[in-house]
Amino acid sequence: MVEDVLADIMGSLLIVFPAFVGIILSYFLYKKVNKISLFRNSPVDEEILLRRMEKAEAGEGGDADSYQKLRQIYRDIQTGAKAFLTAEYGMCVKFSFVVGGVTSMISGYIGMMIAVFTNARCTMTATLSPDAVAWKESFNVAFRGGAVMGFALSGLGILVLYFLICMYVTVFDVASEAIKLFECVAGFGLGGSAIAMFGRVGGGIYTKAADVGADLAGKVVAGIPEDDPRNPATIADNVGDNVGDVAGMGSDLFGSFAEATCAALVIAAQSHDLVSAGWDTLIFPLYISAVGILVCAAVSFVATDLKPVRNEAEIEEVLKTQLALTTIGMTVVMYPICATFLPSTFYLGARSTFAASCANATGNSKCVTNGPFHAFCCISAGLWGGLIIGFVTEYFTSHSYSPVREVARSTETGAATNIIYGLALGYKSTIVPAGILSGIVFASFSLMDMYGVSLAALGMLGTLSTCLAIDVYGPICDNAGGIAEMAELPETVREKTDALDAAGNTTAAIGKGFAIGSAALVSLALTAAFVTRTSVLDHGVNMLNPVVFAFLLIGSMLPYWFSAMTMKSVGVAAMEMVKEVKRQFDTIPGLLEGSPGHAPPDHARCIKISTDASLREMVPPAILVMTSPIATGMFFGVEAVIGLLAGGLVSGVQLAISASNTGGAWDNAKKYVEKGGLFIDMPKRDNVTGEIIRDELGSPVLISVRQRKGSDCHKAAVVGDTVGDPLKDTSGPALNILMKLMAIISLVFADYFMSINNGQGFLNVPRQAF
Amino acid sequence: MVEDVLADIMGSLLIVFPAFVGIILSYFLYKKVNKISLFRNSPVDEEILLRRMEKAEAGEGGDADSYQKLRQIYRDIQTGAKAFLTAEYGMCVKFSFVVGGVTSMISGYIGMMIAVFTNARCTMTATLSPDAVAWKESFNVAFRGGAVMGFALSGLGILVLYFLICMYVTVFDVASEAIKLFECVAGFGLGGSAIAMFGRVGGGIYTKAADVGADLAGKVVAGIPEDDPRNPATIADNVGDNVGDVAGMGSDLFGSFAEATCAALVIAAQSHDLVSAGWDTLIFPLYISAVGILVCAAVSFVATDLKPVRNEAEIEEVLKTQLALTTIGMTVVMYPICATFLPSTFYLGARSTFAASCANATGNSKCVTNGPFHAFCCISAGLWGGLIIGFVTEYFTSHSYSPVREVARSTETGAATNIIYGLALGYKSTIVPAGILSGIVFASFSLMDMYGVSLAALGMLGTLSTCLAIDVYGPICDNAGGIAEMAELPETVREKTDALDAAGNTTAAIGKGFAIGSAALVSLALTAAFVTRTSVLDHGVNMLNPVVFAFLLIGSMLPYWFSAMTMKSVGVAAMEMVKEVKRQFDTIPGLLEGSPGHAPPDHARCIKISTDASLREMVPPAILVMTSPIATGMFFGVEAVIGLLAGGLVSGVQLAISASNTGGAWDNAKKYVEKGGLFIDMPKRDNVTGEIIRDELGSPVLISVRQRKGSDCHKAAVVGDTVGDPLKDTSGPALNILMKLMAIISLVFADYFMSINNGQGFLNVPRQAF
Repeated sequence: MVEDVLADIMGSLLIVFPAFVGIILSYFLYKKVNKISLFRNSPVDEEILLRRMEKAEAGEGGDADSYQKLRQIYRDIQTGAKAFLTAEYGMCVKFSFVVGGVTSMISGYIGMMIAVFTNARCTMTATLSPDAVAWKESFNVAFRGGAVMGFALSGLGILVLYFLICMYVTVFDVASEAIKLFECVAGFGLGGSAIAMFGRVGGGIYTKAADVGADLAGKVVAGIPEDDPRNPATIADNVGDNVGDVAGMGSDLFGSFAEATCAALVIAAQSHDLVSAGWDTLIFPLYISAVGILVCAAVSFVATDLKPVRNEAEIEEVLKTQLALTTIGMTVVMYPICATFLPSTFYLGARSTFAASCANATGNSKCVTNGPFHAFCCISAGLWGGLIIGFVTEYFTSHSYSPVREVARSTETGAATNIIYGLALGYKSTIVPAGILSGIVFASFSLMDMYGVSLAALGMLGTLSTCLAIDVYGPICDNAGGIAEMAELPETVREKTDALDAAGNTTAAIGKGFAIGSAALVSLALTAAFVTRTSVLDHGVNMLNPVVFAFLLIGSMLPYWFSAMTMKSVGVAAMEMVKEVKRQFDTIPGLLEGSPGHAPPDHARCIKISTDASLREMVPPAILVMTSPIATGMFFGVEAVIGLLAGGLVSGVQLAISASNTGGAWDNAKKYVEKGGLFIDMPKRDNVTGEIIRDELGSPVLISVRQRKGSDCHKAAVVGDTVGDPLKDTSGPALNILMKLMAIISLVFADYFMSINNGQGFLNVPRQAF
Repeated sequence: MVEDVLADIMGSLLIVFPAFVGIILSYFLYKKVNKISLFRNSPVDEEILLRRMEKAEAGEGGDADSYQKLRQIYRDIQTGAKAFLTAEYGMCVKFSFVVGGVTSMISGYIGMMIAVFTNARCTMTATLSPDAVAWKESFNVAFRGGAVMGFALSGLGILVLYFLICMYVTVFDVASEAIKLFECVAGFGLGGSAIAMFGRVGGGIYTKAADVGADLAGKVVAGIPEDDPRNPATIADNVGDNVGDVAGMGSDLFGSFAEATCAALVIAAQSHDLVSAGWDTLIFPLYISAVGILVCAAVSFVATDLKPVRNEAEIEEVLKTQLALTTIGMTVVMYPICATFLPSTFYLGARSTFAASCANATGNSKCVTNGPFHAFCCISAGLWGGLIIGFVTEYFTSHSYSPVREVARSTETGAATNIIYGLALGYKSTIVPAGILSGIVFASFSLMDMYGVSLAALGMLGTLSTCLAIDVYGPICDNAGGIAEMAELPETVREKTDALDAAGNTTAAIGKGFAIGSAALVSLALTAAFVTRTSVLDHGVNMLNPVVFAFLLIGSMLPYWFSAMTMKSVGVAAMEMVKEVKRQFDTIPGLLEGSPGHAPPDHARCIKISTDASLREMVPPAILVMTSPIATGMFFGVEAVIGLLAGGLVSGVQLAISASNTGGAWDNAKKYVEKGGLFIDMPKRDNVTGEIIRDELGSPVLISVRQRKGSDCHKAAVVGDTVGDPLKDTSGPALNILMKLMAIISLVFADYFMSINNGQGFLNVPRQAF
């Protein structure tokens, strides 16, 4: 008896403790970032302040005026970000009252605020000298800012979910009502996913409307550079980086985590053996994520303290080491965890018709007896599959490798070849991830049926905190660069933030790979849960049933429709932005000329345009995603829904991967051109402010970064980058949500669908027409 | 007895007669086109010659030198086209000795030769006056040239197939060996499809390597216009139009026709009722196509004689009327045909386990009893579905409607927005076709199982001759325009050919829609035939079987891999072309300056580069398509193959539609910009050689067509057009072949797959793991 209580307490601790570790660690990292003050009246860092003033006087570190500007910009972004959050989340609350939604919002809010809070501080530390200190400190600030988001989100997520479960335990009887219990908990996943819909789609439209709008405005209205402080859209652009990449990515991954956990719990609750093996076995999925936090926390100190960044070359390496170490660490600790919490042999069936019919039909022993090693294999498949997908994504989007360099070189024959090569690269980049995903599906599905798929998804998400830290790091550096440009800090500062950002782009691509891969697995796990709930498996889901195949076709079309909507939305919103910028240049005297003492540009209006556009434009895609499975289930029955979900999944995952990678490749190809990568015989030096190239006659010419930016190649590269913006930051990532949300909505409506003509829909479509 | 013989003869006549009608009609149309002579020593048209000379002397119709050039260009294209055919088909012969391949080659050869033969004649007739005569005659020449291809291909196809069947009847006993008989015949489909692989992929690479290469060369090397006669790549470009659009499209549709017929025949042979109802019932699928020729022939005179084109505005209308009339005509005659050749009630089962199990499982009467009306419904679904898909495609690719105009207007903010809007348009354009296709699949599959799907495919292909005529019309006009430009004929001539070409672009899009739609249906019919052959249906194809779902994912990735290969190939080949053009400009004295008496550009080398590139580059995609289903079946078994085929189909059809339509839209958006569509208040006048626009200060300025071509909007539109070239003419259409070829190869290897562990592959994957 006493032992039981002790074991119970130990079990709870292993979930609650890591969750608190995550939350506490995120607070601790926040404090670290906060040490860099932007304000003269802050007492903590008078030293930095003094050094800064000295440099300003020496004409090295930007003048005092630059710092004044920096602070102003910081405040503007902060105000804009808050304005957006208030407006967007206000609308979301109507959709979802569930705890999952609120938790997702809180996590997103924390992440966005910390990102905004960090970016100016990152610029600040990039001005430090000597260089080695600047590299280390600016990297650490950005990475810690990202980690705040990572740990806060996973810590909060697990904690809230655990308390939710504990609350429901007082209502339901675990032994007999486990299924009911976890279906109540599944609302948590739906809430998280609904918020993700708005975070990803709305956030994606917001950020790219501002980004594309700012770029185009500079081009159409006047030849001002991309991040010129006179351009009123730039603040909206910077805000957008936080909204889309931080809050959007966060809510997306939070949704994946919540849904994968819920799917695993729902499926586990249907196994007689797992339920009767006790509480810890039942909530085993939670332990995977909880232990993940501890591993990520331990590894995070490698990047910031044990093996810090000393120069530009090390940034990417350090970030990638983080991921690899987390994966290795997770693999090491996972087997003991599996062995501790799972029975040495168990059967997924009893109430699972899936496993039962498997055993009957083929006598395949794999379907009958499972053990900790099976679970470990599924989790590891997810862990390592995610890492490989991430690194393949990186290979196709980093300018350190030949694919992006080839795209960059194609700018020599103009924008058209750049686009052709970029699209081809995106298509090609689907090969390995699709292969890996199908391998994971095949292995985990064969080993442990649907439970295996959900464990694989959780395994892939085991590195969630590290992934998020690395993801959020990117927009922080991007913003830091924008702020450096706007505050007119010296070019060396901008070069540092650019280098940090370039690595961030790469790791953002890795993060996107993770997000897509986990979304695909989660979506499949939810589809499988839907299949069990609707008892379709009693007689199989025949792919060549007319209604199934017809909806397989329609499902595979939905990602295209959805992408068309989101891309068009970005175009429309960007056009509005361009008009507003033009209006401001026309009406605000002295703004275009930059004459001294001119009135400031009206950032607020640009922010409002982005906010309004994102709120307005995300409604049709949201309606599409939500109504398609419901209408299909209502009229054509549950088999049609399964066709729809499978079609959407297999087509969406390819489109999402290719869109994300194409966009990422173009972005880094542009950076490669700006770095002078196209010029042969370029000397490798640090602190480069100009490059020696050869002119038409072969004579060496010194060109500066700005000149390099004006070249024909660069213009062609900018076209690719602009096209890639909505692909990689709006339509691509939004497809993750499409896959997951359609599946979880179907799951929630499963009972309703079954109530209509026994799952045959109002049109009474035969469930098995052969 | 006598009645039987008579009925037999009548039946044969109804197939052989239309086939001969087709062939004879194509000869007759060829003679008509041939009346327009390009050579002074031709006696038939001294009148045209005289008129031409008069005009030349009056300085209106180009000078005598222009005509000399025209003839030279014509000879160059002819030589190039022949060189390509010899090289390409030489390689194909190794792959396929079957009659289908040879028939496909002959049809392609006829089509290409007639296209080459017609295009200079089209230019010639465009120089006639008055305008009404020029419009009518130039349109008629181009349309008749296209019809030669259309009728020759369908006539030959049916005739050869029929004789093949008649030949096999002497070997096999129809009553007992019908299945064997038609499986022998199925080789015809494989042959046709193998040739289509090379026609579409090789031809697509050939044409776009030349086209993109010529465009880029003009841009990179020197600012010479697209079709400048000094550019050595232009002849290869013109040859390419014939290779890709004529031979490629022809072999693609020939493959669809052959495979759909074979699939229908194989399936019919498995129905006890259809076999015992007699020979005519069995070969009913052939009657659909045969009657189609007669209907198309009757309707073709509407365009050329009954309601000829009188001005620019009528071109598109006349072409579209052709299609609509053919569809109406086919619908009218199909019911009597169905009622005549099919029993009043019949059952598809007996040997079809599919229908039998359907009846057992659900007692659904639709699966049991079929009649002529069911068949008529399936055929009509295909016919009208094809028409709607065609018109939707047109809506999204013609600059008469808002989608393309919106894309054109987006060029005002540069190439990037043009690309974004174009991609969004392509994605959006998948909605209706995917919906229509799934509707056809659902209806025909529900009504008559797989037989219904193959009848729907044949129904869609019932308008084959008209479709092909309209399709081939496009490249003829395009070439005619290129020839007019190169021969430096007056701008009015070029404007006529441009108008003809613009309509051709639109109808080419319609044809592409047909080709994709029919490919999808044919692929599904073949997959269904594979399912029956491998007896998978005895226990269903469970989509949530791990191996099925894993290969559904891999299958949906293949179109992306394939597209990446083909697009990249175009890029690589185009680069080679650019280098060669640069070399020629560098080494041939006086060529760049166009000084009098300079040595001619070396067209042959450019043609060789395109030929070599296409032959080399088409090998990897061909290997991918052919080995994927074989390797899957060998190692993972037949259920994996079904997953692969279904994934490839549902993902490929979306990618093909979006790629084709995006490319078509960019092409016509460019044309819209060139027409001055972006300028407000443009006066509508005939014979326009310049346009009044407003300059920056709002004053009206007269700009010529050439100036319009140099605008920033036009430059942005050209980027879109160049990107669209490989999308719409290489990777998009090649996906049709991917879908069909994978399916027919699987069908051919079905017995082999079944021989390995009873269809479970070398890895012995359980066929039903639940």
